[in-house]
Amino acid sequence: MDITEYMQTIGRQARAASRGMARADSATRNQALLLIAAAIERDADQLRAANARDMEAAAAAGLEPALLDRLALSDKAIATMVDGLRQIVALPDPIGEITDLKFRPTGIQVGRMRVPLGVIGIIYEARPNVTVDAAGLCIKSGNAAILRGGSEAIHCNRALAALVAEGLRGAGLPEHGVQVVETTDRAAVGALITMPEFVDVIVPRGGKGLIARLMKEATVPMIKHLDGICHVYIDAKADIAKALPIAMNAKTHRYGTCNTMETLLVARAIAPTVLPQLAELYATKEVELRADPEALAILQGYPHLTPATEEDWSTEYLAPILAVKIVDGIDAAIEHINTYSSKHTDAIVTEDYTDAMRFLREVDSASVMINASTRFADGFEYGLGAEIGISNDKLHARGPVGLEGLTSLKYVVFGHGEVRK
Amino acid sequence: MDITEYMQTIGRQARAASRGMARADSATRNQALLLIAAAIERDADQLRAANARDMEAAAAAGLEPALLDRLALSDKAIATMVDGLRQIVALPDPIGEITDLKFRPTGIQVGRMRVPLGVIGIIYEARPNVTVDAAGLCIKSGNAAILRGGSEAIHCNRALAALVAEGLRGAGLPEHGVQVVETTDRAAVGALITMPEFVDVIVPRGGKGLIARLMKEATVPMIKHLDGICHVYIDAKADIAKALPIAMNAKTHRYGTCNTMETLLVARAIAPTVLPQLAELYATKEVELRADPEALAILQGYPHLTPATEEDWSTEYLAPILAVKIVDGIDAAIEHINTYSSKHTDAIVTEDYTDAMRFLREVDSASVMINASTRFADGFEYGLGAEIGISNDKLHARGPVGLEGLTSLKYVVFGHGEVRK
Repeated sequence: MDITEYMQTIGRQARAASRGMARADSATRNQALLLIAAAIERDADQLRAANARDMEAAAAAGLEPALLDRLALSDKAIATMVDGLRQIVALPDPIGEITDLKFRPTGIQVGRMRVPLGVIGIIYEARPNVTVDAAGLCIKSGNAAILRGGSEAIHCNRALAALVAEGLRGAGLPEHGVQVVETTDRAAVGALITMPEFVDVIVPRGGKGLIARLMKEATVPMIKHLDGICHVYIDAKADIAKALPIAMNAKTHRYGTCNTMETLLVARAIAPTVLPQLAELYATKEVELRADPEALAILQGYPHLTPATEEDWSTEYLAPILAVKIVDGIDAAIEHINTYSSKHTDAIVTEDYTDAMRFLREVDSASVMINASTRFADGFEYGLGAEIGISNDKLHARGPVGLEGLTSLKYVVFGHGEVRK
Repeated sequence: MDITEYMQTIGRQARAASRGMARADSATRNQALLLIAAAIERDADQLRAANARDMEAAAAAGLEPALLDRLALSDKAIATMVDGLRQIVALPDPIGEITDLKFRPTGIQVGRMRVPLGVIGIIYEARPNVTVDAAGLCIKSGNAAILRGGSEAIHCNRALAALVAEGLRGAGLPEHGVQVVETTDRAAVGALITMPEFVDVIVPRGGKGLIARLMKEATVPMIKHLDGICHVYIDAKADIAKALPIAMNAKTHRYGTCNTMETLLVARAIAPTVLPQLAELYATKEVELRADPEALAILQGYPHLTPATEEDWSTEYLAPILAVKIVDGIDAAIEHINTYSSKHTDAIVTEDYTDAMRFLREVDSASVMINASTRFADGFEYGLGAEIGISNDKLHARGPVGLEGLTSLKYVVFGHGEVRK
C-alpha cells in the first residue's frame, strides 16, 4: 500500500465528511455519541480480546511496564470511556451560537457564529481511551477527525473505529466523520501533517521529542503541548498556612504530570521561615531539592540536597526533584518565570493585593494562579467538561483545550438589502 | 552588516521591550499614540521631504503608477494617519479584561484574561501609512512590533520610525516597542519569519505570491490573507429589489479589493428574470460576464459576454470581470461556494428563512452574509475600529482582524489556598 495515497484518501474522505458533520444538529451528534457508548458496552468482550492481542505483542516486543500500563484496557477503563462519552453528550453544544450581534450605522447587523474547524488530525500514544475521547470531542464539536494512535494499540483501535463508525451511521452522520489510521507505518504521520488541503489542525499528544519533530515538518497548523516547567512563587507577604500545602501539592500530588511544579521561587524575606518547614514536608516524600546558594545555606542538613546548576531552571523533572531559588521579590520572580517558564502554569502565594494583581497580569503563561496549586491546570478542573490537550501556544487556544478550541468564530452579517456607499 | 545578526538584535530588543509594553496601563499606551500623532503633525514637512526622496527613486526605477500612488504621502494621507491614531486612542483597551470568572466546586475561581500576544512582525508593501496604522494597533494592544515595509518607502519609514520612537519614549514606554527594519535587504524578511524565539506572530500584507512564499518558509505562525474569491448567490426566493443593487455593488463598487464579488450564482428559477436586468446594470460599467452555458443562453446579446471555463470559478479577477453560473438552488450554491470560494466572504440574497439560515450555517467562510453586499467585509464596517488585516485562516482570527486578533486569552485562577485532591 502506498502510504501517501492511503492518507490522501483518508484526508479526502474526511474533508467530504466534515460538511455533513458541520451541518448536523445537536440531537444527531449527541445520538451518535450515545450509540457509540452503547456499542462499546455491548462489545466490551471483543474490545478486551483485541486489547489482549495488543498487550501480548507489546509485552513480547519488550514494551516498558509504564507504557504497557497505558495500553491496558481494563473494565474500569472501558467504563470511563463510556462515561466520558455520556458526559460529552451533557455538555452544551458549542456550534451555531451567535454572539455580539449588533447593528452598525449602515443598517447591517454584524455578529460572530461559532463553527467547527473542519477536519482535526490527532496524533497520540498507544492509549486506546484517547481514541474514544478524541472521537467524542470531535463529533460533539461538529468536526471530522483523523485519529492516529500509537501502533501498539492497533487491534484495539481498529475495533473501536468500527464501533465509532457504527454509531455515526446509526445517527445518520457520515461514516468517515471519524477515521482511524489503520496502518502502523510511521510515514502516515508525515503525510497527515503535510496535507493542509484536507486537515485544518493537528493536535499532537505525546512526548516533547515527537512534537519538536512535527514542528519542523508540519505545514498544517498545530495545537501543541510542549512541556510543563511550572513555578510556584512564595511572596514575602504569603500566608504560610497556604504556602506550605500549595508548594507540597504542586510538587508531590503527581510527579509525571505537566502541571506539576518544577521550580520553587521564594522571596528572601520569608525564605528562612518557610523553607525549613517545607523541607520537613518534602522529606516525607524524599523529594530531592536542587537549591541555589542562598537556599542551600538555609536548607543545610536536608537529606536530599544538591546545588542547582543553570540547567535546573529549565528542566522538567517529572520526578521527585525540585529546583529552589531565593529571589528579591515580585520583580525578580516575574523576570525568572518569564525567562525560564514553559508558559504552561505558574502560581503566586501572597496576601498582597498589588503583588497578586501584578503577577496575574505580567506572567506570560497559559495559566496564572493566585494562592492555588498548579495541579489545577486541567480541562476538567477548569470546567471545560473534557480536554483534547493543553496548549503552550499563544495563538488560537491557550491552556487546556476543550470543545471551544476545536471551533472558530466566523462573522455573520444580517442585511436588508444594504450596499456599501 | 550581517542581516541575520541585525534581525536577531531587533528580535531580542523586541522581546525585551514586549514586557514593558504588556505591563503599561491604558493611559500610558494612549499617551504614546497621542504623542506620535502630534509629532507627525509637527514634522509633516520633513515626512513629505522623505517621501519625495522615495518617490523620485521609485519613479527613476520605473515603479508602476498604481504603486507610486500607494507610495505617495499626500497631505490627506498624513491627516488620515493622524486621525487613525486618535481613533485608536478612543477604542476601548482590550488588555487585562477578565471574563467568565466562575467558582468551581473545588473553591477556585477560574476565568480568562485578555493579554497581548507579545511581538508582532508585520510585512507590508511600500505604503507609509501602514507603518503608522500598524504601530498604533500594536501599541494599543500592548504588543511590541517589528515593521518591515516595502523597500521603496524606506526614507519615509525611517522618518516615521523616529517619530514613533519619540512618542514611546515620551510616554515612558520602551523605545524598542516598535522597530522599523531599516534595511532594504530581502534577507531581512527571511530572518523575521524564522525566529519564533523572538516573534509570536507574523501578519503579512501584500500579494498572494509573497504570502505563498512566506507560508513555505515561515516557522513563526502567521495571520494571513490569501485571496478573495467572493460569491453572491441570488436565491429563487430573492427580492429582486435587493438582489440588483447588492450584485451591482458587490462587483462594481471597487474592483481591486479582496471583498469584491468574483462569481455570481443565480438560482435557475429566477435567472431568466434577474439576469437580463442585472446585465443592463453591468453594461453601464462595461463589466465582462463569463457565463456558464445556461447563463450564456439567457444573456445572449450582452456586449461583453464570454463562455466561462473551469478556471473562472477559481479566479480572483480584481477587474471588471464577473463569472456567472446558474445553479439548481441552495444546495448547489453551497456546494459550489465550499468548493471554489477562498473562504473570505460570501453572500446570499433571499427572503426564504430556511435558505438564509442554512447558508449562514453551512458556508464555510470568514464572513457569511444575508441580503448585504460582500463589500461590507471590513474592519471599520464591522465596528472593529481599525484593522491590521483580513484572515483567511480558521485558527485564531478569522475575517477582519482588529485589536482582539493581536491578543490571546490566558486562564487566571483566583484561589484561597486550595490544593488538588
